[in-house]
Amino acid sequence: MANAPRGKLLVGQSGGCTHVINASLQGVVTEALRRKPVTAVWGMRHGIEGVLKRDVVDFGKESEETLKRLARSPAAALGSCRKKIDDSELSEILDVFSENDIRHFVYIGGNDSADTSHRIAVAAAKRGVPLHVMAVPKTIDNDLPRTDHCPGFGSAARFIASVVADTGMETESMSTVEPVKIIEVMGRNAGWLAASSALAKRSERDAPHLVWPPEIPFDRSTFLKLIRHWLKRIGYCVAVVSETIVDAKGRPVAAGKKRLEMDAFGHPRSADAAEYLCNLVKAEIGVRARWDKPGTIQRMSSAHFSDVDVVEARECGRAAVRFALQGMSDRMVVMRRRSGKRYAVDYDAVPLTAIANREKLLPARFFNRGIMLPTPAFKRYALPLVGSGLPDHPRLRGYKPRLR
Amino acid sequence: MANAPRGKLLVGQSGGCTHVINASLQGVVTEALRRKPVTAVWGMRHGIEGVLKRDVVDFGKESEETLKRLARSPAAALGSCRKKIDDSELSEILDVFSENDIRHFVYIGGNDSADTSHRIAVAAAKRGVPLHVMAVPKTIDNDLPRTDHCPGFGSAARFIASVVADTGMETESMSTVEPVKIIEVMGRNAGWLAASSALAKRSERDAPHLVWPPEIPFDRSTFLKLIRHWLKRIGYCVAVVSETIVDAKGRPVAAGKKRLEMDAFGHPRSADAAEYLCNLVKAEIGVRARWDKPGTIQRMSSAHFSDVDVVEARECGRAAVRFALQGMSDRMVVMRRRSGKRYAVDYDAVPLTAIANREKLLPARFFNRGIMLPTPAFKRYALPLVGSGLPDHPRLRGYKPRLR
Repeated sequence: MANAPRGKLLVGQSGGCTHVINASLQGVVTEALRRKPVTAVWGMRHGIEGVLKRDVVDFGKESEETLKRLARSPAAALGSCRKKIDDSELSEILDVFSENDIRHFVYIGGNDSADTSHRIAVAAAKRGVPLHVMAVPKTIDNDLPRTDHCPGFGSAARFIASVVADTGMETESMSTVEPVKIIEVMGRNAGWLAASSALAKRSERDAPHLVWPPEIPFDRSTFLKLIRHWLKRIGYCVAVVSETIVDAKGRPVAAGKKRLEMDAFGHPRSADAAEYLCNLVKAEIGVRARWDKPGTIQRMSSAHFSDVDVVEARECGRAAVRFALQGMSDRMVVMRRRSGKRYAVDYDAVPLTAIANREKLLPARFFNRGIMLPTPAFKRYALPLVGSGLPDHPRLRGYKPRLR
Repeated sequence: MANAPRGKLLVGQSGGCTHVINASLQGVVTEALRRKPVTAVWGMRHGIEGVLKRDVVDFGKESEETLKRLARSPAAALGSCRKKIDDSELSEILDVFSENDIRHFVYIGGNDSADTSHRIAVAAAKRGVPLHVMAVPKTIDNDLPRTDHCPGFGSAARFIASVVADTGMETESMSTVEPVKIIEVMGRNAGWLAASSALAKRSERDAPHLVWPPEIPFDRSTFLKLIRHWLKRIGYCVAVVSETIVDAKGRPVAAGKKRLEMDAFGHPRSADAAEYLCNLVKAEIGVRARWDKPGTIQRMSSAHFSDVDVVEARECGRAAVRFALQGMSDRMVVMRRRSGKRYAVDYDAVPLTAIANREKLLPARFFNRGIMLPTPAFKRYALPLVGSGLPDHPRLRGYKPRLR
């Protein structure tokens, strides 16, 4: 630690936003500002694009008040990006680092950002530029390997668990009018968020009644059979589906209906699974159905911060600075859950090669394919991450008097 | 009051659910239970359908705990309906009332429910059945005439104001990737909810930048011109549109794209305005755009109760019982805002003929067509209804250091 290299620390945010990407930024900035070897803390505007455009900000000039409020403000205060850098840009980035005495590079992001960070670390090592590259995990999708979970997941899961429980009460109320509701949630190729919709479910009447994660090929007849089952049993059904569910041939369920776009990284963007399935229910079962697509609201709603998520996101940011100053590079901060009854995590770091372009899908033990709902093991895993106070709505006992 | 008719009180919930339809139910039930002339308090399952099916519950047997918790539980605990009764059903309903000594009928609902209540009151008077019919206003759309506002509006407006402010921060963060977002909100033919999306807007950077209520015929060129304006000025744009926006000929903007359904009352159901406009922006401006459709979540999210809305919904329910016991009938409870700086309302009742099948649209003084945003007068009207603590997100000062 005594011989931690003196120099500037540059921090950035990348990829889709989360509730807590600013909590991580706050952690990085406040930790770095109080460390002597760090001569200045700079932030890049819109991730790595800010380096290429020489668009950076000096956190030494920001007020303590602003830094404090960041922790409970969703989205990326520095601006985010979805930039895949080419080799000439990589070279330019290292030039900027050398010329400006930037010795520490902290990138808050998901799989793609881990890839960018890794390429910068490798190129710096190759060129002999002294640079400590640390990635801070960030994704609502919870799909990064080697970490117990990802900052951002807990709050998005809290939103989904809450609003599915809430709006399920409406479907129950309106069961004689519109007995089916389909809610489309995010999660890319992983079903962590879809499964989280069941975290406030306490009884069979509570929504959701059926969850379809992207790991399980969509099967029309099973889907319709389960909806018919719940309509018969309780008179209504709320289904939660991932926006990326695909059929057995890997085609999005709504394919054919509309062309899919690809993003800069070649990931397919969502078709409207919920709307398609809603029409399927109307046509095949002949009941009214409606669909909701909370979209980006699920990763932004400031009424749904998970306290645990906020704290961990900040601690991941602080850990990244500590690890960089210990001389680590080409690594991502990860959380390891302690054994024992009380939930707690330790912070560690793993090589970026173990993270970049890999996905951690929902394991089989967390999902019951027979009933298409997450298992109690999943609930034990996820409940500590979303915080307390999930909805628990009352129902009337409904004592029936004798009518004439 | 001394000669208030002894007999049972029957209460029901009807139409689309809101955050506070159960708070009104709680008000009706708790007030009625403590009134001597009320011999029993019964609730109908799924509104008027419950009378026809003899499916009612006795509130005298519900626990105080359940009744207490109702006030902060969204949706209709009794079940709701969208039932338009015919003349023979009307006659059957009056038979049930006579045979079971039901002297007070309280119906919590919107325009359509007011129509049902009015028809029951008229038929009872004609037949000489002693019945006091009171309607309790309920609608997130805020479109009932003769009342300052409607229970249900404040909480839905709070949701929309909050999440638009929240998710607008993401669009700002992602401005170099996907600079346009379109959010589709409810409101039937009235722009009250759409306008409410601007209640947390403090500066030109805050979302929304453009609101399109259903009262103003959609105009493609104005819409695109405003989006181009904001893209040029701040680099991104969040537009909020009502799901029911129509063109100058009264056709839904997305018409042609899909067939519209009609509900039981002949109201057109929503096409996907936001998705259509998103594709329009991509095609005409050539930038990436995305859309969110919170759907029923906007009237159900239990993290977004407006405290004022909860209290007023309950008081409207209590007032309905008081008025019925004073001998009133064929009326709806309304709220009148007191003059003076401190927000307060008085409860009164108006004839149902002034309510049923009429709509109160957003008045011209509440919306600035030049910039397509609500006026300060609208904010003064609506802010007391949504409660305190709307999002107020920090931004970095962004001091730029000199780079080499």
